[in-house]
Amino acid sequence: MSNRDRMMHLGMFYFTSGHHRAGWRHPDAHTGGPFHVPTLQQTVRTLERAKFDFVFLADFLVSGYHSSNIVMLEPLTLLSNLAAVTERIGLVATASTTYDEPYRLARAMASLDHLSGGRAGWNVVTSSHRDSAKNFGKDEHMDHALRYERAREFVKVAKGLWDSWEDDAFPMDQASGVFVDTTKRHVLDHKGEHFSVAGPLNIARSPQGYPVIVQAGSSEPGQELGAELAEVIFTAQDNIAEARAFYAAIKGRLGKNGRKDNDMLVMPGVLPIIGGTESEARGKLEQLQALVDADTAVDLTGLSGLIGADLSAYPLDGPLPELPETGVIKSRSKLLRDIAKRNDFTIRQLNQFITVSRGHFVAIGSPEQVADKLEQWFLERGADGFNVMPPHMPGGLDDFAEQVVPLLQKRGLFRTEYGGSTLRDHLGLARPANRHAASASGESVSSQQSVDS
Amino acid sequence: MSNRDRMMHLGMFYFTSGHHRAGWRHPDAHTGGPFHVPTLQQTVRTLERAKFDFVFLADFLVSGYHSSNIVMLEPLTLLSNLAAVTERIGLVATASTTYDEPYRLARAMASLDHLSGGRAGWNVVTSSHRDSAKNFGKDEHMDHALRYERAREFVKVAKGLWDSWEDDAFPMDQASGVFVDTTKRHVLDHKGEHFSVAGPLNIARSPQGYPVIVQAGSSEPGQELGAELAEVIFTAQDNIAEARAFYAAIKGRLGKNGRKDNDMLVMPGVLPIIGGTESEARGKLEQLQALVDADTAVDLTGLSGLIGADLSAYPLDGPLPELPETGVIKSRSKLLRDIAKRNDFTIRQLNQFITVSRGHFVAIGSPEQVADKLEQWFLERGADGFNVMPPHMPGGLDDFAEQVVPLLQKRGLFRTEYGGSTLRDHLGLARPANRHAASASGESVSSQQSVDS
Repeated sequence: MSNRDRMMHLGMFYFTSGHHRAGWRHPDAHTGGPFHVPTLQQTVRTLERAKFDFVFLADFLVSGYHSSNIVMLEPLTLLSNLAAVTERIGLVATASTTYDEPYRLARAMASLDHLSGGRAGWNVVTSSHRDSAKNFGKDEHMDHALRYERAREFVKVAKGLWDSWEDDAFPMDQASGVFVDTTKRHVLDHKGEHFSVAGPLNIARSPQGYPVIVQAGSSEPGQELGAELAEVIFTAQDNIAEARAFYAAIKGRLGKNGRKDNDMLVMPGVLPIIGGTESEARGKLEQLQALVDADTAVDLTGLSGLIGADLSAYPLDGPLPELPETGVIKSRSKLLRDIAKRNDFTIRQLNQFITVSRGHFVAIGSPEQVADKLEQWFLERGADGFNVMPPHMPGGLDDFAEQVVPLLQKRGLFRTEYGGSTLRDHLGLARPANRHAASASGESVSSQQSVDS
Repeated sequence: MSNRDRMMHLGMFYFTSGHHRAGWRHPDAHTGGPFHVPTLQQTVRTLERAKFDFVFLADFLVSGYHSSNIVMLEPLTLLSNLAAVTERIGLVATASTTYDEPYRLARAMASLDHLSGGRAGWNVVTSSHRDSAKNFGKDEHMDHALRYERAREFVKVAKGLWDSWEDDAFPMDQASGVFVDTTKRHVLDHKGEHFSVAGPLNIARSPQGYPVIVQAGSSEPGQELGAELAEVIFTAQDNIAEARAFYAAIKGRLGKNGRKDNDMLVMPGVLPIIGGTESEARGKLEQLQALVDADTAVDLTGLSGLIGADLSAYPLDGPLPELPETGVIKSRSKLLRDIAKRNDFTIRQLNQFITVSRGHFVAIGSPEQVADKLEQWFLERGADGFNVMPPHMPGGLDDFAEQVVPLLQKRGLFRTEYGGSTLRDHLGLARPANRHAASASGESVSSQQSVDS
């Protein structure tokens, strides 16, 4: 596909107080906290006015990264609420395959897709934080490889359940008294390594067939899983060389899965800091850095979690020690270790560094400079779009929506109106046919046939 | 409490096509089906205009009772959506303790309570249908007694998790940089028979503290559990004598749990059929009965499920055989067996009977006659209110809201305006204090202390 045919895609990775650790202390920050529903609703309306593809909600089965997201609303309930006050914006919920059941989650995701008229996405995660286990009756977090095996089977079962009913299974014909055409009902009867699920799911096939599958693991098994089933890859790279290498590598894995380049969109996170000039933007970052309070500035819990090793015993002004990592996002740990090495960071400097974007790409400068960077990453195949991470809210989003989006639109890189109504429409992804339908293409059926009995 | 101080409470038990099996075929029935969101939103707005206490959603981890609810939206996502288009109506979601985890469900329920400004209720069920097990990796449904033990521990853990953060744990003071007061964070560290849950929950304490706890099991262990922890009992009786006996029995169990009469509201289901005159109302019922189509009229799956025994091998025009019941709502099975015996019903007659209300109280007549019956049940202590089950939608609800509610209001039995904003306000239930708060009363603390380590 030539660049002429490509359009950039934009999601927003929504932390209610923004992604900079001190975002909540910004002088213009909203003061409602993470549970002030009118603020949340207003935010997604801003995204919709700016024609974003989706809002993306992370999820934690423990407390979040920052003091300002140590508590938060649960994604599926929140997005179901936001669906009622929006019409077009996609709604992507993170949900874990390690601590949930396919029947329950497949049903809730399909429900969100119905409630939103086809705007649901599912960010499939295996839960990186080992303490999650202790909230779900387990002493130990499941092994990394085993988590990915379980994830693969979980998604297969979910897809099988989403095909329980053909799209036209419910004639609801009042005159003849035929509500349901039971010939279009299909029992899954899955029996696998991790799950036994009979089905059928007790919800009709949803507008998108399946919600859009998003995936964020960039480790080796994460990339394998992503190349197999993800339609959007949310990734973290801090420079264009790494981004291009990752982009090429993960797209290169598609062919062996019978998938084409544009069956998957690669969308790295980007934290934009926008000023009238570059130096004004740098001043804004300094202002935020100054608001990182003394306690959290030397609190190594967050950094230890991201690195996957307890750093509390090491001198703050010494180098990052070479410790084995365990029970974290492997790819994020590697990214931060590489950054520390490349920049010769002390522990204190690395900790200061992660307060900004936790390793994600930081685009700083005038609106033109930020747009230039995004355009470059996009045209040079480092990204098909971006998951925008405003440093503070609502100002960090408003700056981007009002100053950068119009530039991207003027350059013909980003839509000026929604062309369709579902998240699949926005992303240019096909609606999967039901494997059981007479009209289903051979390809969709064969790629799924192992799920079904 | 004298009747002078009591006010009747009204919920609506919402099946999207109404509760009569043929409701969806009624000439005035909405034709959008169970997934037409504008219809669902309009329905709860009608309830709010009529000042109902709550809308109540059942839940099934298999297909529903009727062809018209064989598929349905998932309750927590649906209610989160309806919260966005309403301001006062309570939102009660059924959720199972047998096939879910306390950390996940407690969090989603608290999220709904935040999203709705304190209008969440949780109908605690143990999942009556044995086929549920097969959707959750189990060969056999858990034993009835064990399910109730698990439910008891589940609710205890959930309450412990809801007290993870004191109400004032989040000062969010931008000037001082103190977002969270960690002295007001409490780790649960529960280790019990069925669950090990560390906590704390990653959501702030919700507007109601705990969602209102609803419970519907009327079996012996169901009543024991209800008397211990339920704030609303949803029950099924088909006549006032049984209703009064049940009311007295379950209220009689409160004392030994240190609870008072008005800590629990008993709300039987009622299916109203309203006409200008009694004979017009009876004509309406006949009209609906005529719409039960031939296939479902002799389909014994539903009846076998409710009775808890396979009836397919028995003659339709013979008596109900005395078979052991297994894996169902024990109390409902008993109710229907009693009704068959009392009325000398054949299987065919019993099957015809359950198409109307599945054993729930049917109030048929003019608006005055229906209001009279509700008033009598209320004044004679057969009920503190009712869970209204319209036979068809929207007409069955409109008839009740427009013709019966104004009579109840005129008689001073039902509110004309909401007096507060939370579901606890509507029901006259106290907001539970956080067990860890300095100001918590000794009583609330001691009733919960066994949960906490």
